[in-house]
Formats: sequence, structure tokens, C-alpha cells
Amino acid sequence: MTEIAERLAAILPAAALRAVTPSYLEEPRGRWQGQAAAIVAPGSVAEVAAVLRLCSDLRAPVIPYGGGTGLVGGQLAEDGTPPVILSMERMRVIRHFDAEAGTMIVEAGAILSEIHAAAEAEDWIFPLTLASQGSARLGGLLATNAGGVNVIRYGNARDLVLGVEAVLADGTVIDTLSPLRKDNTGYDLRHLLIGSEGTLGVITAASLRLFPKPAAVGAAMMVVPSPEAALGLLKLAQARVGPSLSAFELIGREGLMFLDEVGPETRQPFDPRPDWICLIDLGMGAGTSPEAALEELFAEAFEQDLVSDGVIAQSEAQRAEFWALRENIPAANRRIGAVSSHDISVPVAAVPRFIAEAPARIGAVGEFRLNCFGHMGDGNLHYNVFPMPGKSRADHENQRGAIKRAVHDLVQELGGSVSAEHGVGRLKVEDLERYGDPGKLKAMRAIKAALDPLGILNPGAVLRA
Amino acid sequence: MTEIAERLAAILPAAALRAVTPSYLEEPRGRWQGQAAAIVAPGSVAEVAAVLRLCSDLRAPVIPYGGGTGLVGGQLAEDGTPPVILSMERMRVIRHFDAEAGTMIVEAGAILSEIHAAAEAEDWIFPLTLASQGSARLGGLLATNAGGVNVIRYGNARDLVLGVEAVLADGTVIDTLSPLRKDNTGYDLRHLLIGSEGTLGVITAASLRLFPKPAAVGAAMMVVPSPEAALGLLKLAQARVGPSLSAFELIGREGLMFLDEVGPETRQPFDPRPDWICLIDLGMGAGTSPEAALEELFAEAFEQDLVSDGVIAQSEAQRAEFWALRENIPAANRRIGAVSSHDISVPVAAVPRFIAEAPARIGAVGEFRLNCFGHMGDGNLHYNVFPMPGKSRADHENQRGAIKRAVHDLVQELGGSVSAEHGVGRLKVEDLERYGDPGKLKAMRAIKAALDPLGILNPGAVLRA
Repeated sequence: MTEIAERLAAILPAAALRAVTPSYLEEPRGRWQGQAAAIVAPGSVAEVAAVLRLCSDLRAPVIPYGGGTGLVGGQLAEDGTPPVILSMERMRVIRHFDAEAGTMIVEAGAILSEIHAAAEAEDWIFPLTLASQGSARLGGLLATNAGGVNVIRYGNARDLVLGVEAVLADGTVIDTLSPLRKDNTGYDLRHLLIGSEGTLGVITAASLRLFPKPAAVGAAMMVVPSPEAALGLLKLAQARVGPSLSAFELIGREGLMFLDEVGPETRQPFDPRPDWICLIDLGMGAGTSPEAALEELFAEAFEQDLVSDGVIAQSEAQRAEFWALRENIPAANRRIGAVSSHDISVPVAAVPRFIAEAPARIGAVGEFRLNCFGHMGDGNLHYNVFPMPGKSRADHENQRGAIKRAVHDLVQELGGSVSAEHGVGRLKVEDLERYGDPGKLKAMRAIKAALDPLGILNPGAVLRA
Repeated sequence: MTEIAERLAAILPAAALRAVTPSYLEEPRGRWQGQAAAIVAPGSVAEVAAVLRLCSDLRAPVIPYGGGTGLVGGQLAEDGTPPVILSMERMRVIRHFDAEAGTMIVEAGAILSEIHAAAEAEDWIFPLTLASQGSARLGGLLATNAGGVNVIRYGNARDLVLGVEAVLADGTVIDTLSPLRKDNTGYDLRHLLIGSEGTLGVITAASLRLFPKPAAVGAAMMVVPSPEAALGLLKLAQARVGPSLSAFELIGREGLMFLDEVGPETRQPFDPRPDWICLIDLGMGAGTSPEAALEELFAEAFEQDLVSDGVIAQSEAQRAEFWALRENIPAANRRIGAVSSHDISVPVAAVPRFIAEAPARIGAVGEFRLNCFGHMGDGNLHYNVFPMPGKSRADHENQRGAIKRAVHDLVQELGGSVSAEHGVGRLKVEDLERYGDPGKLKAMRAIKAALDPLGILNPGAVLRA
């Protein structure tokens, strides 16, 4: 047992102590291996505060830990002083559910799919929806301001939060859980903590904003000839069914081929695999027909040459199949093994230009397969670069930096962001230094120094330690 | 000319220099008288930065100044070192308008009604709507995270902003104007600056999110027997026409009587004046009828004994009349002269309880007239206390503190906020200290010290100087 583990064992109940097991030190893509001096799972805000006070006293680094699903290395440190992993897994209570007002106070360790289920049991929805929802925990989702597929309608994670409870590095507890719709009493710490990736404080609970469960839902997959046509279809959908448009996803042919090649086994509606598919999801009120709305949308799009083929889900099971196709692509990607993955956004109107120009930029580095898919409606693409058949990621280690640079330079030229929804973590610290606004970076460093003067909270994430 | 005025004159063009005239040193309710060592109106971000660098060098206090319409003394300092008033009045350009995406980059000196007009000319709306929109400027509206009548549908000012440009106390320029929908590259300085009331930085421009202009609008005034019935009507409206509900205002009888007593001349639809009126505003899509929706809502509410009388606007002119009644109440209030004004919010469900209990709390202090009106849909009431006929504000100077305390204690007991939408300014610094979360206040002071270490930006506002 390390010294810090002993000191922690002295102040925490036995239930809060964890052995250092590999699952806390891995990340979904298997790229980095973390380390830990100790792992603790406090059961209360007071215990979180006690851990942070002790770690402050000992100048010990702390990594706040949710579901471990982050994709930018924010949840583990490969080098430096082995940190204390502060897992929120034991704080997962729904403290309060106001089914009348549509608000919920939930602890940070709750798993997203549990929150979904609790909300839906009372005819509400918590609309944050993403592939890892079966293991991602609320605290991590808020720390990274997670996005997902429903941002076009409901916003990012921060837009779904009315208030937070958090503990600062020195153990100070901040309680701004009040779910008031209007409260202008001082600086907005909620939004400062959300998206700060555990570097400014540990979110322990949040007041969540729920939305009425749509009475009728529907989905369609439509084949579009080009990204330009996809953009045209998006605009048409926004004009015709704007307020009902819950998701508008773009899926490129390479992802469909990956599913054929390595699975997971997935039913695909189109054969041969088309170049581009749009997955459109609607949520509508009682007495409406999403199927009819999608049929009309398809008919008008067909007339305008924006679509060439399409399938409208005839059942909830079929809608689930469409979404399984979309959500299986990241799993297929992991099986193939990307040389470099990019979570980028550009202004929505610039998506076709990005897709047109990126291959040449990457082609200048070498020959690769490109899998482009993502949240077209938000201008957010997951643009991932894979080895050609017969090659592996390991064959291209020395080209990864050049690929990243090529993609991110193009994003910057188009006024986009090199981290749309995954955050900065440790993976993109250099990118932030290169592409970030210098004034913003200066202010961020000043805020970090003010709230965590000893630099114990997730050191090396977001900002260089 | 003061020394600082001379120094400023040396670094700014003549067009940026202003004489110290009374209009900059007054506020709408005429309660406080400001002072100024100099008044400048820079024409560019570079000039704003130059002013702040000079003021940092001289340790001179600076008050960022918008339209001067704030109600909590955030825009003027009665005592302390006379400040430099930094007026944004010359920076009012719309730098960019993306009529396709529905975004607009606007300088901080633009007047809200100008922004409305520019958006509407392209069939968009910028939905921030409040009584002072003819003189309030964007910078002040964002610095105070202004609310207004459409929050129930579109959110507060912060919810309408995609990015900001700002200058910190030392002249550092922060450019985060990018209107991307997803951008997780570091701490959210946008939301930290919005609502910080000019104490952390000077907002010089913002990317605004526009919304499609509703194809059909309508309004109704419905008489409700009680605040409980108003709450019932709100819920019914949310269930029936939720997504179309742009405003839900509550108006008490005293306000109607004030209009009769002192004007402004206002057409009133009900005689005798009812105890409570709800003003409901709808914005709907093409091919719909707000009038029909309001008629159905009224019929169902009547059946449930939630309403006893009502008028549905038959024309845009009549709708404007309804709104004029609502918006004239603050003017009538000013003519009567409040002893104490309260901008409070409570959970929406607690509004009837607040209205039921507040009179007895205030009655314990003395005999007063109570005018209660506001944004029922957000739980935000303007609860203002007036002298009885024949008495004046001056007669009650020594009771103001006790009245405020009585009202704010009740708000606190109900889990509410003592500043719902006007901010803290200088008026509520003590309230924030009394009712604010201690952890939050500690963090706020640390952030203030980090971003404005010399304390030159709006000293004494929000936090004690």
C-alpha cells in the first residue's frame, strides 16, 4: 500500500476503498495505460471533501473518475506522480425528482442509462444520448460537456443542467443545485465547472432539466448523393419539421464497409452500400405521425434530387435497428484500429467543404481509409483515419502527428473546433495551445491557478501541468 | 479636466471623449447619483484595451457602461474613487449576419431594439424582450444575463449567446466569437463573463443565436380567480401549447389601479379591474391559428374553473395593446415611487405560496400597497412595495431594510433567488453575502482576484470592493 493509500484508508470507511485494478487504468481505445497511487470511491460529498483536503495537504494529484469512457485521456495519466483516482461510482442516488416541474437532482456517479430510465418512468426524457450511455456517468458527462446525437434539438450537456454541487481542490463545497429558471446572483460557476474536465473541481451532483417525452417518434435512413445534398436535406428538414428534429446524422460508406468487414453484426438497409446516408430522427406530439412527416420530407427531397433512396422505420424495433447501425460504427472502428481519430466541428455550411478537402490533405501524408460520420446537424464530424487493408495502426505511428496536423489545420482554416464534443483531455493539450485563442488560454490559466493553486486536480489535462 | 481624463485624451481619438454629463450618472429609478473622473466611448476593441491598460497602470476604477437601464446600481458608483465610465455607445456594428445559419455577430453597444429589427428584416428573431429594449445595449444585457418576458420559451440572455469577445482588466483581448454549436476546447469563459456585471471583463461583441420568426402570433388576457388558478392555467397551457408558449405573465390588480391612478394612459380590457390577469403569448408555425389555440385553451380552463373571463387579441394592434398594458406597469410604478422593489424568483410551484405569505411578512413592518407582477412561467415576480395613498417613499426610508429582509427571507425559505433577472449590482451585495452559498462566494472572490487582481473593474458591484 502506498503512503497516500494508507492515509486515505485512515479517513474513509472501508466501503470507499478500492484495490488498484486494471479497469480504472484503461481507456476505450486502448491507447494509454494509466497509473494510480490509490483508488477511492467516496459515498458522500463530505467524503469527497475529506479526500480533497487530504490530497491538498499531501500535494497529491487527483483524477476525478466517472465511467472511464472518455476518448481524450482525461481520465488517466500515463506519467508523472501516480494520482489518486477519485471514483464517483458509489454516489449514484437520485436525490430528488420533481415530476411536476420536470427537474431531477442526481448524484455524479449515476449512469446515463439509469437516468434515462428514471426520467422515462415518469413520462419525461433526459435527452443526452450517446453511444457509451450504458457506462458513462453523469459527473464525467458534465465534466466533458458531452454532446451526442440529440444536440441539434436539446443542446449539449451544459444546456441540460440547472445547477451543480461540486467540491473544489481545497475541499470547499459549492452548492448551487437550485433548479430555478432565473437566478442572477453572482458568477455562473455551473458553466465554469461543466466542461472543465475535472481540473477546477469535482462535480458531485447536478440539477437536471427534463423534457416532455415525445408522444410519437420515428426515424428514417435516406441515401444522399453527396455531402452537399445532405446539407440540403438538413435545411429542408429544418424548414419542414424543425422543432421535431431530434437528430440528423451523416454516415459515410467506409463505416458501412467496416461493419461488413469486422462487425458487430448489423442489419444494413441498403445494398450495395451507398456513399452517404442520413439518419433522421423525429419526436412529435400526440395525434401526429412521424412516418407521414418523414414520407413527405422524402418525397420533397426526392423531387429536389437531394435523396435517391430511403427507408422509413415501420416500428420501434426498426428504428432501434437504424440507431444500432449508427452506434455500431465506433465499435467497428475500434476493431479496425484507427491511426488517428478526430472529433471536429465546423460551421454546418462548411461540412461539405471539409469533407471535400480533407482527403487531399491526408493523402499528402500517405494512403489511408477515411471513415467520416457524425452529427451533421451540429457541424460535428468524427473523422477517423485508418490503415489500408493489410496494414495496421502500428505501421503508421510516425505519421499520426502529421495526419492530426493536416486535419486540424483545415478545421482551423474553416473556423472550426479541434474538439467538438470529446474535450481536450491529455490528447489535445498541444492542439489547444496551437489553435486556441491566446487571451482565452491566459484567462484559463489564471482561473486554474485561482481555484486549484496547488495544481492537484487532474494535472496535465486541458492545460499543461 | 481630471488627471485621468487628460491621460485618456492623450491615447484616444477626439471622437471617443465625452464630457461628464448627468445622463451617465443617473439610473432609471432616480435613487442613486453616480460620479465620474472621465467618460470615454471607444470605437474599437483596441481602444477598449488601451483604456483598460491605462486604467490598470493608474489603478483607476472603470465602470463598463451600456444603456444605463440597470435597476440594481451596477452602472454607477455613489462613493469611492470617481471611476472612468467606459461607454460602449460607439461600438454598435453588426459585424456579421449569417442569414442561413441564423447567427449574428454584434458589437456590445448595439441597442436591443436595433438588433430585433435587423433580425426581423431577414425573417429571424432575437427573442430577448424586455421593457427597456429601446435603450438597453447588448453589452449590459449580457453583463447582467438579462431575462424578460420570453425566457419561458427561449431562455435567459446567456442561452442566446454562442460566443463573446471581451477585454480583461489588463487589456488582454479574448476572442471566442465562433458561433459553433459544439466546441469543447477549454473553460467556458462566455458564461463566466455573461452575468458577471462588468466585474471580470468588458464584453465588446457577441455571437447571437437567432430563432425562426414564428409565422403566426397571438395573445390573450385571461382573468384568473387566484394565483393557484394562474398556476393551473400555466400547466394547462404548457400541456396544450407548450412549444408555442412564448410568454406567460401574471399581473395583479394593484398594477392596474396604478395605471388608472397615474398612467401612462393605457387601454384596459376588464372593468372592474380583476384581482389577477394572465397575459399569454403564442408563436406558432405556418398554417396554424393562435386565436383558435387560445380559444380552446380558454374553453378548457373555463370548464376547470381556472378562468372567469378573457379576451383574445383579434389583431396585431390589439396584441400590442395587451403588451403595452404589461410594459406600462413599471412606468406607473416609477410615478408612484416604490419604497422597495424586489426582483425575486421561487420554484414555479411555490409562486402561489409566496404571494399568499408575503403580505403578512410585510404587514409586520407597516401598512403598504403591494404591486405583484411578473414572469409567472419562470417563477420570477417583480414584487414591489409602495406607500399608501397620501404617503411617499420618503416617509418610509427607515423601513426599507426591514421590508427587503422580510421579502428576501421568505424567498430564501422557499428555495428562491433574491435576484432573478436584474443582477446584484451594488444594491444586493449584502443580500448576496447573507443568502449566497459560502462556497460559491469564496470561489467568486478567487476568480475576481485572478482575472482582475488590481480590482479596477466595476469595484463594489457584485462583490464588496
